[in-house]
Amino acid sequence: MYTLYALWGTPPDPAAFEDYYWETHAPLAAKLPGIRELNLVRTSDAIEGAESLHYRIAELVFDTKEALDECQKSPEWDALVADAGLMVERFDVSLGNAAGDRVDGLR
Amino acid sequence: MYTLYALWGTPPDPAAFEDYYWETHAPLAAKLPGIRELNLVRTSDAIEGAESLHYRIAELVFDTKEALDECQKSPEWDALVADAGLMVERFDVSLGNAAGDRVDGLR
Repeated sequence: MYTLYALWGTPPDPAAFEDYYWETHAPLAAKLPGIRELNLVRTSDAIEGAESLHYRIAELVFDTKEALDECQKSPEWDALVADAGLMVERFDVSLGNAAGDRVDGLR
Repeated sequence: MYTLYALWGTPPDPAAFEDYYWETHAPLAAKLPGIRELNLVRTSDAIEGAESLHYRIAELVFDTKEALDECQKSPEWDALVADAGLMVERFDVSLGNAAGDRVDGLR
């Protein structure tokens, strides 16, 4: 499997962000061609005395990198990216990403 | 489910880091009481012209926050945290974290 992480910074108005995220943004991600898992985590906690590095982490999981490449040619992908750009402006948040092959460490 | 993310910065010597990570560190994480998933991603890629925000992301997944709290009382947890501290010094890397409840966005 191949995971794309979307890493969100803290919005000044979390309630407005959350409303939009659940009503509009997450459903757009769920429609992506080839998506196998969509794990959404409000990373409000941290351990060992640290502060949480991100406000939210989303895991978009595909079979392979090639499946994500193919997905990126779709209108659903364009709609998601456009919406993310809108959110960054509207909610004054940072959005970064990272991606790679997922290995099962329990095997 | 409840996910704890370990978010690693780029080591000056990735080959030495990777050897140690796979031989020693990941097996310690796999031994944690109550761990349900251990997903290990070398986040070498990024999308939309961005740079990957982290060198590696590990997902340590438990049933609940309470299960992680319980795990943190174990000698296996102490061994993992001690090893992480050793790695930060030995490989000159940053290590941050974030945690929260995981929601299935495809439901």
